[in-house]
Amino acid sequence: MILLLGASGYVGQSFATELSRRGTPFTPLSRREVDYCCFNALLEFLQRTKPSLVINAAGYAGVPNVDACETARAETLTGNTLLPVTIAHACAAAGVPWGHVSSGCIYNGAWLGKESSRRLVPDLHHPEVRSIAETKPDALAGFMETDEPNFTFRNPPCSFYSGSKALAEEAIAGLGQTFLWRMRMPFDHFDHPKNYLTKLLRYDRLYDNFNSLSHRGDFVRVCLDLWERRAAFGIYNVTNPGFTSTRRVVGLIEKILKPGRSFRFFASDEEFYRVAAKAPRSNCVLDVSKLLATGIKLRPVEEALADSLAHWTASASARA
Amino acid sequence: MILLLGASGYVGQSFATELSRRGTPFTPLSRREVDYCCFNALLEFLQRTKPSLVINAAGYAGVPNVDACETARAETLTGNTLLPVTIAHACAAAGVPWGHVSSGCIYNGAWLGKESSRRLVPDLHHPEVRSIAETKPDALAGFMETDEPNFTFRNPPCSFYSGSKALAEEAIAGLGQTFLWRMRMPFDHFDHPKNYLTKLLRYDRLYDNFNSLSHRGDFVRVCLDLWERRAAFGIYNVTNPGFTSTRRVVGLIEKILKPGRSFRFFASDEEFYRVAAKAPRSNCVLDVSKLLATGIKLRPVEEALADSLAHWTASASARA
Repeated sequence: MILLLGASGYVGQSFATELSRRGTPFTPLSRREVDYCCFNALLEFLQRTKPSLVINAAGYAGVPNVDACETARAETLTGNTLLPVTIAHACAAAGVPWGHVSSGCIYNGAWLGKESSRRLVPDLHHPEVRSIAETKPDALAGFMETDEPNFTFRNPPCSFYSGSKALAEEAIAGLGQTFLWRMRMPFDHFDHPKNYLTKLLRYDRLYDNFNSLSHRGDFVRVCLDLWERRAAFGIYNVTNPGFTSTRRVVGLIEKILKPGRSFRFFASDEEFYRVAAKAPRSNCVLDVSKLLATGIKLRPVEEALADSLAHWTASASARA
Repeated sequence: MILLLGASGYVGQSFATELSRRGTPFTPLSRREVDYCCFNALLEFLQRTKPSLVINAAGYAGVPNVDACETARAETLTGNTLLPVTIAHACAAAGVPWGHVSSGCIYNGAWLGKESSRRLVPDLHHPEVRSIAETKPDALAGFMETDEPNFTFRNPPCSFYSGSKALAEEAIAGLGQTFLWRMRMPFDHFDHPKNYLTKLLRYDRLYDNFNSLSHRGDFVRVCLDLWERRAAFGIYNVTNPGFTSTRRVVGLIEKILKPGRSFRFFASDEEFYRVAAKAPRSNCVLDVSKLLATGIKLRPVEEALADSLAHWTASASARA
């Protein structure tokens, strides 16, 4: 039996759907049933029920967006750092393997150039980098799991959200039977406030940048596949291969959804941070060669985006 | 055997001295011997050595002062939140009681008036409150252990240090055999950068306010007494009874040490925060009736201050 924490959240719902589809027995545990934020309560539950795997899809991402985490510090640290650390400890004490939905937002930028002479470009928005990303995308390489996160409390500036997620990874690392599955800006074909595509459709003005992204259904499928195939525990970047830009996604939206309206963009980083955002945003490219080396297949990001838009379903909350 | 973590720090040294004086067997454990920040390593050590009590005197207070915690966020959260949470979990899993050096700095202000009509005064520096504190000190009452901390991430503004300490208390509360010993601005007769008296002697200008304080030796004696007397686990304010003001302590310094120089004060809060401090400072009165109800004796704060000054020893680091 798989124990699923955070089953009612955006990612948790998707895990529940995929587990049901596979016919894999699972228990979605709510904090009302067992306060799994409390080490003693969780450990007792694990020792009594002996799940084969614990999945933590709970976390605090800020409402309406990540800026809220700058001031909701207790909630952010409790949800994104203390909770996974508590689960890690309880699972270690009970000898239960587990997987944590981590985030790629602990990085910013990408690598530019060939391995021997590569350099880190933190600002993908820079005209020079933008030109390379648009014309020679292969010249940009993503962060690997072995690269030290560079958008964290140890490498400021970062958002409080990113800091809390990175601190969790740091505290959990080396505790044994643990998967750290890194997601980036999830999307799929269900309209939902947490869907990247929904955000682009609803925001008044858009911030153009380059990013790797995770199709929500692909993400949970890959996480469960890693477990079922008994892949080595550890960190995995779980984004669809490649990267895209806000403008390219908007191009797909215009082509496929034909929304009959135009999209406005912020003229500059300066305007974006002055008008719309408080916390610094992570924009990054992730490398998924470690994941692909396990033999698990994953479609390129723009293929997943086009597919989501081709099956776009507007009545979100009921079906997501 | 008592296991002492953070034995080389300012408070840890004092625990080691007092345990030696009592002839109580103890093991000071360094991170070089066992990385006790790692749950697995600590749990294994606890299960193998079965200490009767673990004392955590480790933490991160910022160098040269608490302002450093505003930017050293990873170190602050790792040292003050994740470490005690890890110890709490490992001790719970191993069935070992433990005590944590917490801090009274998760409060700000005091209660004014009789119980039925009392109100919280957050600004002890306010002229009206100051006048009461100086002329009718009994009209001010300290925070009790049952009062919710009001200088935390949940009750901003607070310093990052205070936020990290409060979050630890919150995460540890209810985990069983745990003492939370709250200290406030420790002092004794050994000149030392972390001694409150040393700070007053070295700072160019002083910030006048009202506070409860903890004599370092009294503090560790009380913590160990609580354990030896099998007092109920839980939270204890461990400050010397009463409160004092910076100006009153300076008066004692002038009277007893006769330093032959004058002390300058900031003219206002505004000047203090503009010139000298970055993070908001906690200034608070703590109530110690829960502690005194156990039968443990503790001298009033100004008696402990006068005694420390009467035995003032300037060659700090070697003897502290």
